[in-house]
Amino acid sequence: MVFEEKKISSERIYEGAILNLRKDTVTAPKGKAYREIVEHNGAVAIVPITNDGKLVMVKQFRYPTGKVILEIPAGKIDQGETDPLLTAKRELKEETGYTAQNLHYLGKLNPSVAYTEEVIHLYAATGLTPGETSFDDDEALDIVEYDFQEAYQMAASGKLVDAKTIAAIFMAKEQLDIK
Amino acid sequence: MVFEEKKISSERIYEGAILNLRKDTVTAPKGKAYREIVEHNGAVAIVPITNDGKLVMVKQFRYPTGKVILEIPAGKIDQGETDPLLTAKRELKEETGYTAQNLHYLGKLNPSVAYTEEVIHLYAATGLTPGETSFDDDEALDIVEYDFQEAYQMAASGKLVDAKTIAAIFMAKEQLDIK
Repeated sequence: MVFEEKKISSERIYEGAILNLRKDTVTAPKGKAYREIVEHNGAVAIVPITNDGKLVMVKQFRYPTGKVILEIPAGKIDQGETDPLLTAKRELKEETGYTAQNLHYLGKLNPSVAYTEEVIHLYAATGLTPGETSFDDDEALDIVEYDFQEAYQMAASGKLVDAKTIAAIFMAKEQLDIK
Repeated sequence: MVFEEKKISSERIYEGAILNLRKDTVTAPKGKAYREIVEHNGAVAIVPITNDGKLVMVKQFRYPTGKVILEIPAGKIDQGETDPLLTAKRELKEETGYTAQNLHYLGKLNPSVAYTEEVIHLYAATGLTPGETSFDDDEALDIVEYDFQEAYQMAASGKLVDAKTIAAIFMAKEQLDIK
């Protein structure tokens, strides 16, 4: 049996727009320990595959990394959204313009188990119909399409860096048996 | 060209043990925006493969998730550690007891590009020799070994949830051409 930490006390440090921060004192194998925890409402990410086998990706400046990152479409679950599937449909439409006939649930992802509560729900989207995008005011992104196998090789070889993107491309290939 | 946000001002919110938090005001396509950023010293994660083809994993209660998580050995880059390769050797030894003849760099991972600066360096470790573990005082974990292909299937099918683990198993299989 692995030791399970229990909360002794909790201190709220910050309440923000996309995250909160708290510091918990917990039981530890030897006495007690402190855990700094990012609270986050969760997110979705989508592997959109067009009818001719292209993977639809987005390029976006990600301020914390200081770089333009190539990733699959994704977004936060808004307050009040209770079904991640609907969030996935909304984000796919907003960021790429596509609506999907089929959304296949690939699984959920914990991006950083040491300090964040965030969970990312992963979907593969097929049967795509193009349409208009609608970005948020503080969002700017370019849409790029890659042959799925080329994107897969980029993920496998370390040319992509976004964790959800690498995991989701791999899971989509295996679960949808994409050749 | 994707719009690149520039810092206008920065507010320090918290300085902690494993992370700091700051809030930056940045330029946005329409005026300005706020970014909440977790500062983190970075981490390493290792895919250790024994001479008989087993993947060495660890089971650990991860407080932010409220669950016991099955993941590959990993750990923070300590202050003063400048070479992630040495951190990888140290963490592999501490958490599993193994020393590795070969450490192959798989690539780097951004676990959550929207709000954390954390970068995780991924390695595959082969040519393993067993030895003694030495856990940190606030660390408690079980070591479990899986046939590599079984772990790969668990990652592919959504049975694993830790992002670095899923990405690294996939990248190791492709880059080391594990059959």
